Formats: sequence, structure tokens, C-alpha cells
Amino acid sequence: MKALKIGILGLGTVGAGVFNVLNRNQDEIIRRTGRGIEVVMVCRRNVAAAQEIVGNSVPVVADPSALINHPEIDVIVELMGGDTLSKELVLAAIANGKHIVTANKALLAVHGTEIFAAANAKGVIVAFEAAVAGGIPIIKSLREGLSANRIEWVAGIINGTTNFILSEMREKGLDFAVVLKEAQRLGYAEADPTFDVEGVDAAHKLTLMSSIAFGVPVQFSKAFIQGISELTATDINYAEVLGYRIKLLGITKRTSKGIELRVHPCLVPSKRLIANVEGAMNAVMVCGDAVGTTLHYGKGAGSEPTGSAVIADLIDIARLSDATPAQRVPFLAFQSQHLSDFPVLSMDEVVTSYYLRIRVADQPGVLANIASIFAKHNISIDALRQREADEVCGEGANQTDLVVLTHDCNEGQMKMALEQIQALPTVLDKVILIRKEELA
Amino acid sequence: MKALKIGILGLGTVGAGVFNVLNRNQDEIIRRTGRGIEVVMVCRRNVAAAQEIVGNSVPVVADPSALINHPEIDVIVELMGGDTLSKELVLAAIANGKHIVTANKALLAVHGTEIFAAANAKGVIVAFEAAVAGGIPIIKSLREGLSANRIEWVAGIINGTTNFILSEMREKGLDFAVVLKEAQRLGYAEADPTFDVEGVDAAHKLTLMSSIAFGVPVQFSKAFIQGISELTATDINYAEVLGYRIKLLGITKRTSKGIELRVHPCLVPSKRLIANVEGAMNAVMVCGDAVGTTLHYGKGAGSEPTGSAVIADLIDIARLSDATPAQRVPFLAFQSQHLSDFPVLSMDEVVTSYYLRIRVADQPGVLANIASIFAKHNISIDALRQREADEVCGEGANQTDLVVLTHDCNEGQMKMALEQIQALPTVLDKVILIRKEELA
Repeated sequence: MKALKIGILGLGTVGAGVFNVLNRNQDEIIRRTGRGIEVVMVCRRNVAAAQEIVGNSVPVVADPSALINHPEIDVIVELMGGDTLSKELVLAAIANGKHIVTANKALLAVHGTEIFAAANAKGVIVAFEAAVAGGIPIIKSLREGLSANRIEWVAGIINGTTNFILSEMREKGLDFAVVLKEAQRLGYAEADPTFDVEGVDAAHKLTLMSSIAFGVPVQFSKAFIQGISELTATDINYAEVLGYRIKLLGITKRTSKGIELRVHPCLVPSKRLIANVEGAMNAVMVCGDAVGTTLHYGKGAGSEPTGSAVIADLIDIARLSDATPAQRVPFLAFQSQHLSDFPVLSMDEVVTSYYLRIRVADQPGVLANIASIFAKHNISIDALRQREADEVCGEGANQTDLVVLTHDCNEGQMKMALEQIQALPTVLDKVILIRKEELA
Repeated sequence: MKALKIGILGLGTVGAGVFNVLNRNQDEIIRRTGRGIEVVMVCRRNVAAAQEIVGNSVPVVADPSALINHPEIDVIVELMGGDTLSKELVLAAIANGKHIVTANKALLAVHGTEIFAAANAKGVIVAFEAAVAGGIPIIKSLREGLSANRIEWVAGIINGTTNFILSEMREKGLDFAVVLKEAQRLGYAEADPTFDVEGVDAAHKLTLMSSIAFGVPVQFSKAFIQGISELTATDINYAEVLGYRIKLLGITKRTSKGIELRVHPCLVPSKRLIANVEGAMNAVMVCGDAVGTTLHYGKGAGSEPTGSAVIADLIDIARLSDATPAQRVPFLAFQSQHLSDFPVLSMDEVVTSYYLRIRVADQPGVLANIASIFAKHNISIDALRQREADEVCGEGANQTDLVVLTHDCNEGQMKMALEQIQALPTVLDKVILIRKEELA
């Protein structure tokens, strides 16, 4: 059987991984599929840099249209990133009848609806295992491995940079800014780390998993996104004492009213496996009605781990390039005509539990006031810890931290309660609020 | 599109899970595949018991041939267990052109070669996600999700009964026999627990994973199998102190000389996620050359978790029942003509590290004698711990436990060293040997 012919658009770190693994494992791939995968052409603006990777074995061009219009190329592997030029090129490649494999979460989270519609109309495949959690085959597990289930929720550590920073903050007791600098020095964080540390990258990936889990269109604009830049070592330490770790989680849940879609720092019980995922590793938990809770762990980024996901998609395409639509797994796991318009909930409607740290004057009646505000808003307290004033602050014995864990409540209620607590004259600083999930 | 029609052979715990989940999630399945899955007939010797599960909705028969020969049935779901009658029926169903979905690891680990050949000749699918690690989609991850990789090794907790027993032994400091009774009372262990506690069930599952990982025929008869019935709380406790947990692992590795295929208790560093998999849960680690190390965790048994895996296979068949062989994933991940005859290594050729507990007379020269035997056999010591005699034994201060962790060596070497150590007059009891894996 003749080889599947591919063109790689954007030959950076991941592209090099794809190229190298394809070369190294070509025999193994042929043993699996009965068919090779051949790189016909690669494109990179810096042609010389690309030639350093591929040598003389493959033509390198600077102009993407040479790939998009190449008559022999079956699949365009899009590894450019961004969501402007990449969108244009992907749509042009689809129009030319080429299948797409991409690692570009931003592109699909923002423009997925348009791209999938174009691909459906043209009968080509758009595969994106590499867009979420790098080498972990989570897209395949959600779309196929767990397809018997009504998925209840998905929660994951899906950004390695922030997990590395949080791991270091906890282990070394350092604050965010210090660790970020170290992460940048080590190459774990970009010079402009905003996309990672503010949760945008995680939200792109979560948006894709949410669509696949529940059969809804991608709707990145409705995701709630909060990063880790305001986290302090103090709260990480308090959480630890209470039996929790703080992780940046992407969480999407099906509720009777709609879908939760949110990225934010989150307390997780220390005994959960996911709480023990350290450094730049990723892990995704999936809860299905039949299977219960599963966890999928591995490297979420990097040259060859991401290359592993790209090539797995290519192998699927090598098998199914000439299959009928009914023989293929739909892009978002559900047939496009069966996507649901189940709404994404606003944060006010989200139900979760909370960690609060309230800086209070250490005087009689403070706790009573706060407790009565919670009671008034129907928020019940799960645990409460007040340190003796001298234990926790150097500013004098007349201040202390009150740490409260609540049971589940509606975030709208919590906001109202918080407003009243914040207004108390005995509350001396901005109340710190971090959400908490049991993930049982 | 018309529904996929199935017959269920053996309607026990798992069969009930399949039936119930299919009913509950039929709409979701149709949203996914555009096609329903319809149970046409079920078979159970105890017809009345089966009728209690399926009600009047589905005909129940006691005679399997009514399903095997049913003209409308596309797929036989074999959930009978055993490897005699089930083999006969599966081969008969294949001969009748029916696809097979099975949870029967014994059947495939022992008779897989014959069954897969028959299915290939007839052009039907044999799917067995449910045969390994219950609801965890590990077969799909190995065959498809990680298909870009040259798989280096697979190591897993793939028997819930033994993991439950080991968790209880560690947490409560109890010995095997006590916990086994408790596990039987709770329904976690069978009245005759041999298959589980002696590692046979795990070896069946490992045999299947090994074939899929490396592209070799199933060869259960070559697996090394050691169970947990001789483990003591003492060694679990020593391991803990040294930073390890003891788990019953199924391990299969590719080495330059051949394939390791072995089930035995194993020390694993406590900080690894897999060391923290507790109770009846399962977890499988896969190491691939591109992706690095991944972990896949979930429920390894039970009605609906196993049903989840069966139905995922049915959904794949609903898509691919009319596909060509080239469009389908081969049963053992590799094209049947590309299966390799890479040999399974004998235990003497396996390379691993060891935990040894040696009961010795507490007198000068004992350690020197033992150390020189290790040195003579080129076994290097990683850590050594000798308790003061009075700390560990009530039998008098003239005996003690010497606990040794070794670096990697060949098991043949270790056997020879052990024979000499055992023969020392100062070695007072049978030396305890437990293998150790870093799983990094």
C-alpha cells in the first residue's frame, strides 16, 4: 500500500519531534498499518533552521502555499500556532481536499466550528490529539475509549508551566514571581508567560475537551479563566496543612442547568492521585456514569511527546483516509447534526466549595459576625481554622488569619456573602478566595 | 442507519452492566454513532435469573447455539468466562460471520492465536478492551493512542483483588491470610481465590498487553507468575521505611535479548503515582520511546466499568463492521503478517533490582560474608539496613534482619548468590526475595 504523504507547516520543536519519530519508527509504523508515512515537504520561514532539522532528505520551503497546493500531499500537519494565518491555511488546505492534523488548541477552540464545518463539507479529517495534554491520548480516550458513558465531568492539569510553578512554590515555599523567573530561566515558561500563567492555554484545551465530552460546539468565549499569578505561598501552605494541594485545573461539568467551563486554581485533597502530579506533567480525570473516575497521566508538552500524538493521528488517517464519514469518529465525538445547544453556565450559577482566607482583627465577635453572614446566605462551613495571632503574623498580635473551608454552594451566593464579609470593619485585607473540588 | 444487533452470551455481573448501560445511554450512543445498539437475545443457563435482569424486553435462552446461529445477530458478546466452552462458541460464531466482543482474558491469552487467525480468515472483528483493566481504555491507548511509539515497557496493577489485599495489609499491618478472609467476606475475593492471589488473572491480562505492545503472538505459557500469598506484613513495613510500596505488578519489557513477561510482587518507590493506587483500583503504566511514561488509572472490574469497555468495543464495531481490514486496527496492534518471533526471556535472563531480607545471627563477620558473596557475583548493593537485634525480634538478641536493596542485576546471578547466602551457617531462615522496579 502506498505511503501516506504529509507536509509539515511550521517546523519548530514539535515539528522536529514529528520528523524524528517518523524517521526512527517508520518500520514499526509499517508493521502497525501496513503503510508508511512520508514527509514530502516542510515549511518554515527560516528555511536554514528547518534544513538543520531535516537535512537534505526533504525539501524545505518558506511559502506555505507550496504545501497547501502540493498535488501529492494527503495531509497537512499544522504546527505553526496562532489563530490567524493558521486558520487561513487550514481552510485553504481543506478546500484542496487535504486532511489536517494540528496541535493548535487556540485555532480550534476559537474557530473550531467553522473549520469542522468546512472539513465535514469536504469529507476530510481534522485530527487534534496533540492539541490537548501533549502525549496523553486523552482525545481518543474521551471520544472512543469511554464512548459508552454519559460523561459527567472532566478535570485536568493541562498546562505544564503552571504546574511546574505551583510544584516549586509548594516544595520551596517561594512566591509566584520568584518561581516564574526560575521557570523562565529553565525554559519552562516563555518570556511573555501570560497565556500559560493566566490560564488561557488551559482554557483552550478545556474548551476542546468540554465539546468532546458533552457534544456541544466549541465556545471558548464563554470559559471562565483565572490564572495563578495572584497565588501566594501562604495559601499553598495553609492548604497543605488542611490536607489539600493547590493546582491550576481546567474543569468542565454537566449539570442539570448547563455546562460548567472554568479554569482556576483549585484545592484538591492531597490523597488524590491528581494532587500528586508534579512538575511539568499533565493529568486529566474523566468521570463517566458507567466507568466511574479515570485518570490519564503523562507529558503534556515537548518535542517527541507532542510528536507522539501527531503521529497517532496520522496513523489513524493512514487507515481511514478512504473511509466513509459513518466509519470515522466525528471530530467532536458526536455526529455534527446531534451537537447540543446545552448552555455554558455563568460563574454565578456554578456550584462548588471554597477555601477562604480572611485577615481579621483578633477580637471578640469577629468570628460570630462572619459565621452569621455565611448562615444568612445558606453557606455551610466544613472546617475552620484560626491561628493564634502570634503564630502567623509579625505585625502584632492583634491580627490573624481565619481560614474557612465551605461545603458546596452556588458562586452567586458566595459572592454576595463575600461582599458583606469584605465590608466588615474587622476584616483588614482583601479576602482570598480559592475554589475547592473533591474530585471523588 | 439500522441498529447493530447483538447477542449476549453469559448474563452475569458484567452482562447486566452491559445491558443496563446500553439501555440508559442509548440516546447518547446514537448521538455518537448515528446508530443504535440493540440486544436481540441473551443466553444464560439460569434463564429465570437472566429474566430478572432483562425483564420481558429481550428473549432469554439457555442454549448458546440460538445466539450463535441467529441470522440477525451481528455481534456475539461473550461474557461466560472459562476457556473451553467459550472457545468453542466463539469459534462457531466467527465461522458464522459474527463479530466478537469479549471480556475473557483467559480465553484470548491461551487461545488467542487460533481465534485471531479464524477471525482474520473470516474478516470479522474480535474486540477485547474489557479483558484488560476493566473500564480503563488501555487496549485502545496501546493500540492506537500510543501507536507512534516503540513501546519500551508496560507495568500495571491489573488485579483489583490483590491490590485491595496489599492496601489493607499495609494500612492495617495485617498478614495475608487475615486480609484475604476479610476480602472474601466483602466480596473482593472469590471463595477459591487462587486465580487472583497467585497472579494467574494478572498474567492473562499482561500476556495480552505484551502482545499488543511489541507485536508478538500471545504466549501465556511463557509468563513467569508469582502471587502475593507468601508476602508478610513485615516486608511491607520494611519496604515502607525504605521509601517503597509493594504492589503485585504485571511487567513486560522489551530488551535487546527478548521480552520480559512476568507477574510478581514488586517494590515501587512510594512517590510514584502507581504506588499510591489503593484498594481495588487498577493502573497501567506505558513507556514509549517518544511519549515517555504515561499512566492510565481507573476501575479494573465491576459491572458497569467493565460494561463501559464492552460497549466502547461495540461502538467501534458499529462504525467499522463494513470496513476493509486495512481500515481496521489489527487485533494485536500489528498486522498479523508482521508479528515478530522475538523470544520471551526466561527469568534467569531478566534484569531487575532486588529487596532481600536475610535473617542472620547477630555476630561479627556475618555482613562481610554476605557482602563478599554479592561482590563475587557482581551484584552491587544500593542500600543496606540492619536493625539492632532487640528492635526487631522477640526471640533473643542474637538474631536480626538484614535488609538489602541491590542495583540491577541478572536474575540468574542473583539465584546463584542467593544459594550461597542461604547456605551460610549464620543465615537462620529462608531468605526473602522481592523484586524492585523504579518505573521512572
